[in-house]
Amino acid sequence: MNGRLLWLFIALVVVTIAIGAQAADPLASWNDTAPKKAIINFVDQTTTQGSPDFVPPAERIATFDNDGTLWSEQPMYFQLFFALDRVKALAPQHPEWKDKEPFASLLKGDVKAALAGGEKSILEIVMATHAGMTTTEFEKIVKAWIATAKHPKTGRRYTEMVFQPMLELLAYLRANDFKTFIVSGGGIEFMRPWTEAVYGIPPQQVVGSSIQTKFEMRDEGPALIRLPEINFIDDKEGKPVGINTHIGRRPIAAFGNSDGDLQMLQWTTAGAGARFALLVHHTDAKREWAYDRESHIGKLDQALDEANAKGWTVVDMKRDWKAIFPDL
Amino acid sequence: MNGRLLWLFIALVVVTIAIGAQAADPLASWNDTAPKKAIINFVDQTTTQGSPDFVPPAERIATFDNDGTLWSEQPMYFQLFFALDRVKALAPQHPEWKDKEPFASLLKGDVKAALAGGEKSILEIVMATHAGMTTTEFEKIVKAWIATAKHPKTGRRYTEMVFQPMLELLAYLRANDFKTFIVSGGGIEFMRPWTEAVYGIPPQQVVGSSIQTKFEMRDEGPALIRLPEINFIDDKEGKPVGINTHIGRRPIAAFGNSDGDLQMLQWTTAGAGARFALLVHHTDAKREWAYDRESHIGKLDQALDEANAKGWTVVDMKRDWKAIFPDL
Repeated sequence: MNGRLLWLFIALVVVTIAIGAQAADPLASWNDTAPKKAIINFVDQTTTQGSPDFVPPAERIATFDNDGTLWSEQPMYFQLFFALDRVKALAPQHPEWKDKEPFASLLKGDVKAALAGGEKSILEIVMATHAGMTTTEFEKIVKAWIATAKHPKTGRRYTEMVFQPMLELLAYLRANDFKTFIVSGGGIEFMRPWTEAVYGIPPQQVVGSSIQTKFEMRDEGPALIRLPEINFIDDKEGKPVGINTHIGRRPIAAFGNSDGDLQMLQWTTAGAGARFALLVHHTDAKREWAYDRESHIGKLDQALDEANAKGWTVVDMKRDWKAIFPDL
Repeated sequence: MNGRLLWLFIALVVVTIAIGAQAADPLASWNDTAPKKAIINFVDQTTTQGSPDFVPPAERIATFDNDGTLWSEQPMYFQLFFALDRVKALAPQHPEWKDKEPFASLLKGDVKAALAGGEKSILEIVMATHAGMTTTEFEKIVKAWIATAKHPKTGRRYTEMVFQPMLELLAYLRANDFKTFIVSGGGIEFMRPWTEAVYGIPPQQVVGSSIQTKFEMRDEGPALIRLPEINFIDDKEGKPVGINTHIGRRPIAAFGNSDGDLQMLQWTTAGAGARFALLVHHTDAKREWAYDRESHIGKLDQALDEANAKGWTVVDMKRDWKAIFPDL
């Protein structure tokens, strides 16, 4: 091999290695800033045999909030878009809604007026659209909606507004024998029909809010009927309760974005051994949305103070994420 | 090789294969009767690529009742022995129990009189012994009890009264990429501390009855407090509800032993495709207990009729099981 050829060969090897290393970066959409380093460090710490912080695979539980943590939540929770679309679809069967709030305003297209009644209005809309059918029927309704509905601002399907860096994080943790769970204030039966395809998280690893269901033996066979009564609210103090009910083990890592996740992060980090807590801070008005302490949706105030005080990892979306949504 | 040597060689090969086949029988404690054949047939059907009944691994969900299905339940549910032992342990802190039923009778050793009040008495005993501490404290109490307490008749630890054929069945299903869940009327937090070690079933795959818990921020950190209020009863109509809440997917196989399991078996077998339902019939008064239609514990009446009518598999313990409990 002559000198020139040798240099060419070395250059090729270097380029090949560089490309290989890049392709192999499991967190490719994360900038090389503090959060990425903290994540990798925690995973190394807890998965390296012989490390003082080694955690056996069975105990590698990681819990993720959904709205604002795994996908966007502006200008309102996506499940609320679903409920509004259902109100429109069901209106022909409910002529009385024309004169009854919050439905009347909704059907006139005035979402703001409809939601002016606050939680009570939202609850009425949720019950009118989420109850009164079997679990099997509801699953079909959700699947049909999620496959077609589009976000009013981005024009993307809602499942295309998941965060690419978080998809990589989920896969990275699972590749390191973590079990990934969703622990969300959203409806458990609203999420389950699509979380496996979108996040790789199967139904039994989804924890969420729920209404009551009732077993009934019908002519066509047994059915579970969805009732218009709250069963469980998986938010704030409810998150550690939901984790205990469904998982029965304290997570070693938890990921959220709002004050609704504070108790989950407190519960997670209070366990013995290495623990990891991360908040996604929405700071990117250009690529996504920017909001925190004053927001009605995904308010991040107390949890941000506690994160700063306790040294939890805070993702500055604008600074730390190379990409927000997956390429289409 | 001469003729004699050849025959010796062939004989050795045959013996080796025979021993190998025997050692490899994953259901060695099952006699070669109908139930064993039905189980193997179902697993082959659902796991063989190209079979019309093939089920992808993610959907291979199998649910097991615990009391009377995975371990014994006579002369009363083992969790009740735990509660009675707790009453004795807590009595010094409750001088008022001396004059208060059902505690007074219990402390005098008269279990029958104590339980004469039926469900109300049992509920009082359960609340007095299962609530009023953190989840972490309760877990420690259960672990200490299960490690030492012994069954009054057999002298075995309770976890040594699990059914060897069912342990083999759990392992066989998991080896074929099934996920095994417990769905029991027993307390979810009473089972979780030991199901992983005993059955290979992790806490997140245990569904059971529960009392309410409440998140509290204490001086020493966050805690989940067990409250003396029923949260969920995972029995009869509750079992399909519990399955839906925790698993979010209909099982393709379900295993029970009493009328409390009927709805779980109905729910499981009503799904499309190949389904499997099995009842353990306690017919062996010598090696375990014999009881069914008239029993107060583990009553098997309606479910037995339905099993016969629908062709569900019924295990006749005496006829079908080579061994009952594991060798010690």
